[in-house]
Amino acid sequence: MIELHLIGIGTGNPDHLTAQAVAAMNNADLILLPRKGAAKSDLIDLRRGICAAVLTAPVQVAEFDLPARSDDPAYLDAVHDWHDAIAATWCAQIAEHLPDGGRLAMLVWGDPSLYDSTLRIAERLKGAGLDVAVRVVPGITSIQALTAAHAIPLNRLAGSVTITTGRMLRERGWPEGAGTIVVMLDSGGAFEVLEPQGISIWWGAYLGMTHEALEQGALAEAGPRIAARRADLRARHGWIMDVYLMRKEQADGA
Amino acid sequence: MIELHLIGIGTGNPDHLTAQAVAAMNNADLILLPRKGAAKSDLIDLRRGICAAVLTAPVQVAEFDLPARSDDPAYLDAVHDWHDAIAATWCAQIAEHLPDGGRLAMLVWGDPSLYDSTLRIAERLKGAGLDVAVRVVPGITSIQALTAAHAIPLNRLAGSVTITTGRMLRERGWPEGAGTIVVMLDSGGAFEVLEPQGISIWWGAYLGMTHEALEQGALAEAGPRIAARRADLRARHGWIMDVYLMRKEQADGA
Repeated sequence: MIELHLIGIGTGNPDHLTAQAVAAMNNADLILLPRKGAAKSDLIDLRRGICAAVLTAPVQVAEFDLPARSDDPAYLDAVHDWHDAIAATWCAQIAEHLPDGGRLAMLVWGDPSLYDSTLRIAERLKGAGLDVAVRVVPGITSIQALTAAHAIPLNRLAGSVTITTGRMLRERGWPEGAGTIVVMLDSGGAFEVLEPQGISIWWGAYLGMTHEALEQGALAEAGPRIAARRADLRARHGWIMDVYLMRKEQADGA
Repeated sequence: MIELHLIGIGTGNPDHLTAQAVAAMNNADLILLPRKGAAKSDLIDLRRGICAAVLTAPVQVAEFDLPARSDDPAYLDAVHDWHDAIAATWCAQIAEHLPDGGRLAMLVWGDPSLYDSTLRIAERLKGAGLDVAVRVVPGITSIQALTAAHAIPLNRLAGSVTITTGRMLRERGWPEGAGTIVVMLDSGGAFEVLEPQGISIWWGAYLGMTHEALEQGALAEAGPRIAARRADLRARHGWIMDVYLMRKEQADGA
């Protein structure tokens, strides 16, 4: 029996960890850390640093190479295949390090519920015949890190919020009836599909980290500035994670 | 000069506090705790308990009575008046306890960005002529506590999510094009306005607390069960805070 703890660790600031996350890490028999290749070595370094900072119990920490994702244009099929490959890798790690079962912890960027594949991959372990019980420890998401950094509310008073992706914004435009939207997983500049008139944007990258970058303003003016800064930061660091919130003036109360 | 720290404390589980929240509390000169009347005395007790558990520095903790909110049917006007009254109360507390300025901390349920009035009230302090710098410390929201408790993702793979209120769900029905919605601030049973066919619901109350309550299922069957359990729990505890997520089958990928 594997008790799989998916632990939200926030957005890279070790101070984002909750007491619950620290306890779950220390109670684990094994923590698995994914290596995502040289371009994203900052991310494994951050996870290593978090383990070094908070582990006071003798927990085994093992690293593994995350399978690469194909650039198949059939997006969802490619994602499903990739999740299958990751699940197979987890199974191999479990067979090697926890052959008699135990508590396995995975450190999840942000929160395990939000645009993260770990819960879906965990489901595949059950399909592979492992006896798995999943426990989730919530963590600070990049959305909360964004609104905290700008000291702004997520929702307008009594209003709704739509969380969407760069891909959906490009395909469908501004969501019907939405006053506030948050865009995640944008590979860059999806807001350029919008007519910018009356839209304000609050953007952040590397939120919570020492090189956090913030921009905000009217989309017409701030959009090009954000696109240029994003390209520059990405070139400098080799990777970028960013998120943004946009509000429309006088949307119908939403 | 007042440095106002709005600190997200999660949903009542002291283990939801981040290291950043604990540090901000200990670095404050004054922590203000609102009393919300006898029916919600659990809430002030939880905040007192959190202070007792995490304060290691000699921080002054002062309690004040939160002004009551009118039941004016003109909802937004009533909320604005209420926020004005709270801001005036804060000003009086600051004049009494921090006449020469300093670091003031407020403990905010969940996260200060999400359906919370504290940021809006802080804006009013500036309008009242105080020199205020606002700092936000993110916290675990009830949405994350809900998805963690049920061990479910918030979004479908590559899908969007709409966060809305019980009031908006009643007035407008299911948001156009949404596959997943989260309903907050529902005074009870707003989901009853929906045609339940094809909708699943995951509900939670007192999330993260010892008396956490969870229900899930097809809305047609689970809806009445949730309504009955909610009424029972509310009667027993004198108050309730709950949140729920609903998904529609085969919505168009959203």
